[in-house]
Amino acid sequence: MRNICIYLEFLSEAHKEQIRRTAAETGFTPHFFPLEQFEEARACLQSCEVLYAHSADLLRAAPASLQWYCCSFAGVDLYCTDPTLFANPRCLLTNSNGYGITISEHIIMALLMLMRRMPAYLEGFQTHQWAPPLPIRSICGSAFTILGTGNIGANAAQRLRGMGAARITGLSRSGRPQADFDQVLPISRLEEILPQTQFLIMALPGTPDTLHLLNRSRMALLPPTACVINVGRGSAIEQEALVEALNAGRLAGAALDVMDPEPLPPDHPLWSAKNILLTPHVSGNMTLGRTCDVNVEMFCQDLRNYAAGRPLEHLVDRARGY
Amino acid sequence: MRNICIYLEFLSEAHKEQIRRTAAETGFTPHFFPLEQFEEARACLQSCEVLYAHSADLLRAAPASLQWYCCSFAGVDLYCTDPTLFANPRCLLTNSNGYGITISEHIIMALLMLMRRMPAYLEGFQTHQWAPPLPIRSICGSAFTILGTGNIGANAAQRLRGMGAARITGLSRSGRPQADFDQVLPISRLEEILPQTQFLIMALPGTPDTLHLLNRSRMALLPPTACVINVGRGSAIEQEALVEALNAGRLAGAALDVMDPEPLPPDHPLWSAKNILLTPHVSGNMTLGRTCDVNVEMFCQDLRNYAAGRPLEHLVDRARGY
Repeated sequence: MRNICIYLEFLSEAHKEQIRRTAAETGFTPHFFPLEQFEEARACLQSCEVLYAHSADLLRAAPASLQWYCCSFAGVDLYCTDPTLFANPRCLLTNSNGYGITISEHIIMALLMLMRRMPAYLEGFQTHQWAPPLPIRSICGSAFTILGTGNIGANAAQRLRGMGAARITGLSRSGRPQADFDQVLPISRLEEILPQTQFLIMALPGTPDTLHLLNRSRMALLPPTACVINVGRGSAIEQEALVEALNAGRLAGAALDVMDPEPLPPDHPLWSAKNILLTPHVSGNMTLGRTCDVNVEMFCQDLRNYAAGRPLEHLVDRARGY
Repeated sequence: MRNICIYLEFLSEAHKEQIRRTAAETGFTPHFFPLEQFEEARACLQSCEVLYAHSADLLRAAPASLQWYCCSFAGVDLYCTDPTLFANPRCLLTNSNGYGITISEHIIMALLMLMRRMPAYLEGFQTHQWAPPLPIRSICGSAFTILGTGNIGANAAQRLRGMGAARITGLSRSGRPQADFDQVLPISRLEEILPQTQFLIMALPGTPDTLHLLNRSRMALLPPTACVINVGRGSAIEQEALVEALNAGRLAGAALDVMDPEPLPPDHPLWSAKNILLTPHVSGNMTLGRTCDVNVEMFCQDLRNYAAGRPLEHLVDRARGY
C-alpha cells in the first residue's frame, strides 16, 4: 500500500477529488488532514511515502521511509537550511510555485500605492483630513528593475508591460533572455543597474546568495526617488539600512510583504519608517482559489511523474536552495 | 491682436513652448499666469478671445467677447449647470480628457486594494499588529462592470484585460460596442446587470442623468460580495445608502476618489464606514507629466481647429453636460 499524507488548509472538495483521482490512477491512497488534526496526520505519516504539506514540525516527525515532501509554498529556504528536518537524507523536495498571479497582483498594487503616494493620503484618511494633491508617478512610461525572473517576476513583467511600462530589466542568476523583459542581466551586474533604477521589485528566494543582497552600500546606489518592493524573503534586505534611508529621505518609499523576523515585533522600527507600506506576508495568500488550483495541479502532475519514475518537474535543489 | 489667457499650474517650460509655437502658427498671442497671479490674469483676460484654465472665478470675470473657454479638467459639470459663469452665452466650452491613463491606474490600485483586503491590513499596519491572512480575490479570472466607456472606462478595461479579467461589461448612453469590452450595453439596462456584478467601476460625468444613479434601491441589487469604485462624480452615488450598506455588510467594500461635498467634512460618516477607502479627488492628478502632455496637446490641436474655423474636437455640449 503506497500512501500519501496531505496536511493542508484551503483544499476544496474539487481539489481533494482531483488528488484522489490522480492517486487512484497512479496506485496511491491519499489521506487528508485539516491543520487542527496534527496528531492524526503524524500517526498516518509513519506509513506514508509522500507528504504534501507546509509544516516543518510534521516533516520532522516523518519516518526515514518518506521519499518525497511536496511543500505547498514557493519559498522552501527553511527546508534547505535545516538538514535535521529530513530523517531520509535523500528525500525529494518539491515546491509549489503557483503564486505568480496573486503575487504579481500584489506587486502592481504595492507599486501603484507608492507611485500614487498612498502612505501620505492614508494618513489624511486616518485623521479624516482632505489632503492636497501630491506629485505622483505612473506605471505607463516608467522603467522597472525586477530581481528574480521566475514565475513571480515574469508575471509582474507581463502585467507592467500591459500597463505601458517603458522598459523592464530583469536580473537572474543566468541572465538568460526571457519574454516580457526588455533585457535580462546576470545578477552580478546589480550594482551597475541600481543607479538607474526608479522602481526595484525583489522576488528572490531565500538562499545564502540572496542574504542581504540589498545591503547598505548597494542601497546607497539607488537614486533618492527610488522605491523598493519586496515579496521574496525579508532576509534579502538589510532592514536597518532601509529604515535609515527612508527616514532620511534617501529613498522615496518601500512596500514590504516579507520581513525579518516574521511576525514583525510591534516595536520594530520598520513599522513607523517614512513612506513605508507593510503587509503581513500575504501577497501569496493561498485563499485565492486560482493559486490553490495551480498548486494542486502541480502536485498531481508530479505525482504522475513520481509514480512513473520520471524526474519531478518542481524538484528543488536543496544545496542551491530553490 | 488675438490673445489667449492661460491660467494654470503644472505647465512645464516645454508645454509653454508648445503652446507658444502653436499660437504663433495660428496668429495668437498666449499670456501665461501662475495661480497666484489671479488679478493679473483677470486684467489680461479683458482683451482675450480664449481662456485656458480651470477657474470658475476667472471665467465669471471674462468679458462678453470671450469666444472659447478650454477647461483643463475632464469634468465640466460646474460649467454646464451655472449659466451665470458665461458673459457670452455662445462661448464655446471644451474639456481636457487626458486623464485616462492616470485615472485607470488609480482604478487598478483601488480595485486591488479592495480585492486584497487592504482596509483590514492597513488597520493592523496602523497598530503595528501582524494580521492573519484573509480571503482575497484576483483581477485574473474575475468579471467587471464599468459605468462609462469614455477615455477613463476604456483605459481601465484595457488594463483589466491585460491582467486576465474574465469578462468586462461596459455601460454607456449608446451601448455601442467598443474595443476592450466584452459587451457594451445601454445604461438603461443597469438594473439587470447589477445582480451579477462583483466589481462596479463608476467613471461617469456629473450630469442630471447621473445624479444618484447608484441610489438605494439599485445598490440593494448588488450582491453582498460586491465592491464599488467611483472616480467620476460623488453625486452619482447616494452616499447615505452606501454608508449603511457597508456598515451592515450588504456590500463588501468601496473606494471613492470623489464625494459630495468636497472636501468631505471631518465628521462625515463616509470617513469611518466599514471597508472603505477614500482618496481626496486625486485620481486624475495633473502632476503626472503624461496627463499634462496629453491635455496640452489637446488644447493645441483644438487651437488649430479654432483658428481654421473647424469644429472643436473636445467641444462639450453644455445642455447634455459632457
